[in-house]
Amino acid sequence: MKVGSPEAEINRISQELSEQGLTPEPIVGKHKVVLGLVGETAALDPRQIQEISPWIEEVLRVEKPFKRASREYRHGEAGEVVVSTPDGAVHFGEQHPVVLVAGPCSVENEEMIVETARRVKAAGAKFLRGGAYKPRTSPYSFQGHGESALGLLAAAREASGLGIITEVMDTADVDKISEVADVVQVGARNMQNFSLLKKVGAQDKPVLLKRGMSATIDEWLMAAEYVLAGGNPNVILCERGVRGFDRKYARNTLDLSVLPVLRSLTHLPIMIDPSHGTGWFEYVPSMAKAAIAAGADSLMIEVHPNPAKALSDGPQSLTPDRFDSLVQEMAVIGKAVGRWHEPAMAIA
Amino acid sequence: MKVGSPEAEINRISQELSEQGLTPEPIVGKHKVVLGLVGETAALDPRQIQEISPWIEEVLRVEKPFKRASREYRHGEAGEVVVSTPDGAVHFGEQHPVVLVAGPCSVENEEMIVETARRVKAAGAKFLRGGAYKPRTSPYSFQGHGESALGLLAAAREASGLGIITEVMDTADVDKISEVADVVQVGARNMQNFSLLKKVGAQDKPVLLKRGMSATIDEWLMAAEYVLAGGNPNVILCERGVRGFDRKYARNTLDLSVLPVLRSLTHLPIMIDPSHGTGWFEYVPSMAKAAIAAGADSLMIEVHPNPAKALSDGPQSLTPDRFDSLVQEMAVIGKAVGRWHEPAMAIA
Amino acid sequence: MKVGSPEAEINRISQELSEQGLTPEPIVGKHKVVLGLVGETAALDPRQIQEISPWIEEVLRVEKPFKRASREYRHGEAGEVVVSTPDGAVHFGEQHPVVLVAGPCSVENEEMIVETARRVKAAGAKFLRGGAYKPRTSPYSFQGHGESALGLLAAAREASGLGIITEVMDTADVDKISEVADVVQVGARNMQNFSLLKKVGAQDKPVLLKRGMSATIDEWLMAAEYVLAGGNPNVILCERGVRGFDRKYARNTLDLSVLPVLRSLTHLPIMIDPSHGTGWFEYVPSMAKAAIAAGADSLMIEVHPNPAKALSDGPQSLTPDRFDSLVQEMAVIGKAVGRWHEPAMAIA
Amino acid sequence: MKVGSPEAEINRISQELSEQGLTPEPIVGKHKVVLGLVGETAALDPRQIQEISPWIEEVLRVEKPFKRASREYRHGEAGEVVVSTPDGAVHFGEQHPVVLVAGPCSVENEEMIVETARRVKAAGAKFLRGGAYKPRTSPYSFQGHGESALGLLAAAREASGLGIITEVMDTADVDKISEVADVVQVGARNMQNFSLLKKVGAQDKPVLLKRGMSATIDEWLMAAEYVLAGGNPNVILCERGVRGFDRKYARNTLDLSVLPVLRSLTHLPIMIDPSHGTGWFEYVPSMAKAAIAAGADSLMIEVHPNPAKALSDGPQSLTPDRFDSLVQEMAVIGKAVGRWHEPAMAIA
Repeated sequence: MKVGSPEAEINRISQELSEQGLTPEPIVGKHKVVLGLVGETAALDPRQIQEISPWIEEVLRVEKPFKRASREYRHGEAGEVVVSTPDGAVHFGEQHPVVLVAGPCSVENEEMIVETARRVKAAGAKFLRGGAYKPRTSPYSFQGHGESALGLLAAAREASGLGIITEVMDTADVDKISEVADVVQVGARNMQNFSLLKKVGAQDKPVLLKRGMSATIDEWLMAAEYVLAGGNPNVILCERGVRGFDRKYARNTLDLSVLPVLRSLTHLPIMIDPSHGTGWFEYVPSMAKAAIAAGADSLMIEVHPNPAKALSDGPQSLTPDRFDSLVQEMAVIGKAVGRWHEPAMAIA
Repeated sequence: MKVGSPEAEINRISQELSEQGLTPEPIVGKHKVVLGLVGETAALDPRQIQEISPWIEEVLRVEKPFKRASREYRHGEAGEVVVSTPDGAVHFGEQHPVVLVAGPCSVENEEMIVETARRVKAAGAKFLRGGAYKPRTSPYSFQGHGESALGLLAAAREASGLGIITEVMDTADVDKISEVADVVQVGARNMQNFSLLKKVGAQDKPVLLKRGMSATIDEWLMAAEYVLAGGNPNVILCERGVRGFDRKYARNTLDLSVLPVLRSLTHLPIMIDPSHGTGWFEYVPSMAKAAIAAGADSLMIEVHPNPAKALSDGPQSLTPDRFDSLVQEMAVIGKAVGRWHEPAMAIA
Repeated sequence: MKVGSPEAEINRISQELSEQGLTPEPIVGKHKVVLGLVGETAALDPRQIQEISPWIEEVLRVEKPFKRASREYRHGEAGEVVVSTPDGAVHFGEQHPVVLVAGPCSVENEEMIVETARRVKAAGAKFLRGGAYKPRTSPYSFQGHGESALGLLAAAREASGLGIITEVMDTADVDKISEVADVVQVGARNMQNFSLLKKVGAQDKPVLLKRGMSATIDEWLMAAEYVLAGGNPNVILCERGVRGFDRKYARNTLDLSVLPVLRSLTHLPIMIDPSHGTGWFEYVPSMAKAAIAAGADSLMIEVHPNPAKALSDGPQSLTPDRFDSLVQEMAVIGKAVGRWHEPAMAIA
Repeated sequence: MKVGSPEAEINRISQELSEQGLTPEPIVGKHKVVLGLVGETAALDPRQIQEISPWIEEVLRVEKPFKRASREYRHGEAGEVVVSTPDGAVHFGEQHPVVLVAGPCSVENEEMIVETARRVKAAGAKFLRGGAYKPRTSPYSFQGHGESALGLLAAAREASGLGIITEVMDTADVDKISEVADVVQVGARNMQNFSLLKKVGAQDKPVLLKRGMSATIDEWLMAAEYVLAGGNPNVILCERGVRGFDRKYARNTLDLSVLPVLRSLTHLPIMIDPSHGTGWFEYVPSMAKAAIAAGADSLMIEVHPNPAKALSDGPQSLTPDRFDSLVQEMAVIGKAVGRWHEPAMAIA
């Protein structure tokens, strides 16, 4: 409250807040009165409360707006998301080795997707990424092969044993995509497509939630909260670069500081996508290694058998050979921080 | 090309580009060679071309990526969007008076929406805005009354004669919303929901396309291009504030410079929303007047009979009385720039 | 304090804060305890207080960090800055007509600066802007003529009767610049050059303080506070566009919403610079008119006799003829809002 | 040039550009003409050239604006900056171990600075950082002890053998600071204080150039170019976080992608400051490790004997004990990537 607020006004405000189901508790100081609000404040708009009286100086939120996504929700413990794949369960989480997800931006044909799947699996990936439905800035760009690409992903899954991660862009496509995918991806442009979030929250497959182009940490966790509140407890968060003021060299600003920040706020596993995060394959290796050193639970990396001919995002894709080398570099860091999966020795 | 690029390499690159259907034309200078590309370049990714050879120094786009949205598409002329309403056709465009759109953030009940419609019509509005489906950051916030609110909008339309503008958030809702709405709104969070853009491009009602939170001008016009390419020529662009680095006072940064920029790039009409653009009703009047002085074709302003009790966005809503005063202030500017509708005198 | 904070810990924290000269006042609720802090909090770092105990959930600032710059400092009244010029005192402030400042980016030679001064004065300007010392991104660009240009500004002042506004970039130059200038400008890149702010705060000429490229409103007002606290009460704030994520068309994002925001926070007069704010002369007129409609106290506009040959910033400069037309357009808006200076009729 | 540009106009433009000392070379295609410009283009403003004719569609820069800072300037080789310290020469650069710089935000008294120097040296640091002159947002905050603190830094240097890095804020202070400092720091707020850049370019001590709050990579390298062009070849670049849209948790966005980007553009060594970059000590370790994994040449980390009592930036400071642990964690990554200094064994 502003200095000099009349007592009658403070009483009136308290009364009004009580009617809204809140419990206002006044603190009377020498110069100022502060009203603490206890109760269900998650859905309140601080600006709205300020409107109640011109004597209110400022309304400040102390509680976090998210609940199920919060670390407190699991009493401070890390969570994990377990995904079943043809080759067995894969665990995403702080207590587990870094999970590698790799593959092309879009599924182009059976040969390329099966071949890519085999190569990235041999290098150590557990999941194949690949777009059937592609969000493209231009209506004149290749939009993905759609439903037929889902069949190709299923074939690649069977051929390789990898789990499948693919994006859904339309509520009408959720069912057919979640039939094929092991993890359903919501892309950056749809992070606040609340209809879509509700729909993927109402199905069973784990959800990979990419951070929106200019989403705050709170907005991102609230988007996760939509899925969690919808009944689906399995959400993986993926940082893929935010919009910055300088896009001359890197296309986006990969915000690796989300790693320690999210760790303290949420129990959800965290994936980093350095391919979209930088937009240029030369920048991917150093950012991938940085992500592991900083504590990422998973990496998503674009790999294409022939980036120069890719129908989308070629410039940020690694060749399978470059991916092989990168995995070796990442392994050095992963082992150093104790987060690398040592393959069992083959016994002759 | 970089200094010292071998001729054989330049020939190889030209060959490869020709195979992609482009016509490369080399310019040979003393120090450098530049390759000009002529042809269908709208869907090309400059980064991809750069991948063709390490001798390529930089790939720069000269052509604009949008076509139907461009001013050239109408040979430099301004366009107009004509919307039929119960009270007759309303024209949005540079050659017409400023069109006022007003109403609450969300439709709460019949009494409030009909009452608001009557008040804003009396003040000079031609359209009623009001959300049936609401995009809310929190899953625990009021999400709009949905389908039942569409009925209330229809009632308010009939009672007042105003046209109706309301938001669609899900491809599954497009049909039922376009039955009731005179203009279908795509919100900022869905500006790059390409499934939704295609769907509203395939129906007949004009589309109000809000600018995404951090959308560049090109991305925004490409989103409009999705609707235009889908067969719907009636798109109105609406600036509603972009994400900035300082949100302590104004919630967003209202980017009024889009007015002269868009004028030179596109023939589409331009609306300004100072209510979302600032997030605080005290800031609305000065930004509304600025918008008219800068050449806006239309204004969208939130009005609520009792902002302090609004179920959403109360703090940025004007009361009907404040809206009355604002219209008078806007009229002063509107008349000064020759863009104000003088109501016909009533004859006794 | 976090839920469940031990009483002993709360006492310990209160004790520690008391030792720092603050008066902590606890509010005890059913679930939480809030500690209100009263006292000299302007210099406190909220993060520092949080460090005192892991039981502190969040530290929130309620008081504004600026004092002399605040509107409350003048009991809610608007301030004014009065500048003496050869032609008499000019008043900047809410209660006065809009003051026009015009001139070239940099002073190139005597003829051009005197000629420009005469033309902009004839059009209605009260001040001539022109750089002697120029901040340039590249060390290889023209850096301004320096001291010799100060002499040319003095000549233009005498010839035209206009006041002079010119930029200071180095503490070592403050004295010689304030001898010639009627208003000393601190540029955007030096907004947090605190040595310079202290130096201009210790001299007598009014200070024009441009907003930094990515300065928040609070940081800007704190920079003004440096000048005010240094003993110079005459500060004019100038918005010149902030850094945004899209610089393809407009170079900066002109943030006109500072007009209503600053009005509520400070008594200082506000100038808008649409030339730097957009970076392109075609965009200047609509933004200049918008600024007046939104309540600007002053406009700064770049005018150059031959923009195509200008040594700096030609593309954002108007020719004197275009400036003449713009003044007529601005006058229409200025008169409409009652902020235009009507020149006295010449009597034959 | 736009489609349909008249030949006479193209000739006129070429003529005009020739007069400006450039060599325009036209490329004539079927639909378009492109004019290539060869010559001294570093100081040209593309917008200015566009002004020459309305037939010019767009002016695009192909050459980089920086020269001495460019990697090409050293024929693609990495550079190094060698700094002499009491304990011998320290090398900053890609071919050398990671250099640790540590110390408090500001020098508070002799005991604390000498004690901190001893502790960070024991942990492995080669340089002591510590502010004598402090840039503070508020004029009411502690501004540093100034000249007397320089004496304390000299004492700490002698006592510990560490090199000294301290900030200069005023051209008038350059001489006395460079007498004491082994590396002179230009802070983020002064990155485009061109007077200061010229002054530090004209003295002999190596310069640590922090990136401005919202500086693009090109602007940052151009600021370095000022120092290099002034005759001082020893510049170290330091990323310290840029301004983002979400400052609720991390204060700035630490942009680690500058590591691979700068590597390809410049030969200058690169330092990362995760303390300012995040603003919170808990986030420092993961970002410090990420920086090393991504290829940083040096780390600057704030260490204070008692952060809770620090006169500035306490919350982002580590205690000496925490710094000890962090160095061990960093060593694991540093060794993994082959960039760690193995101390020689002491012989009994």
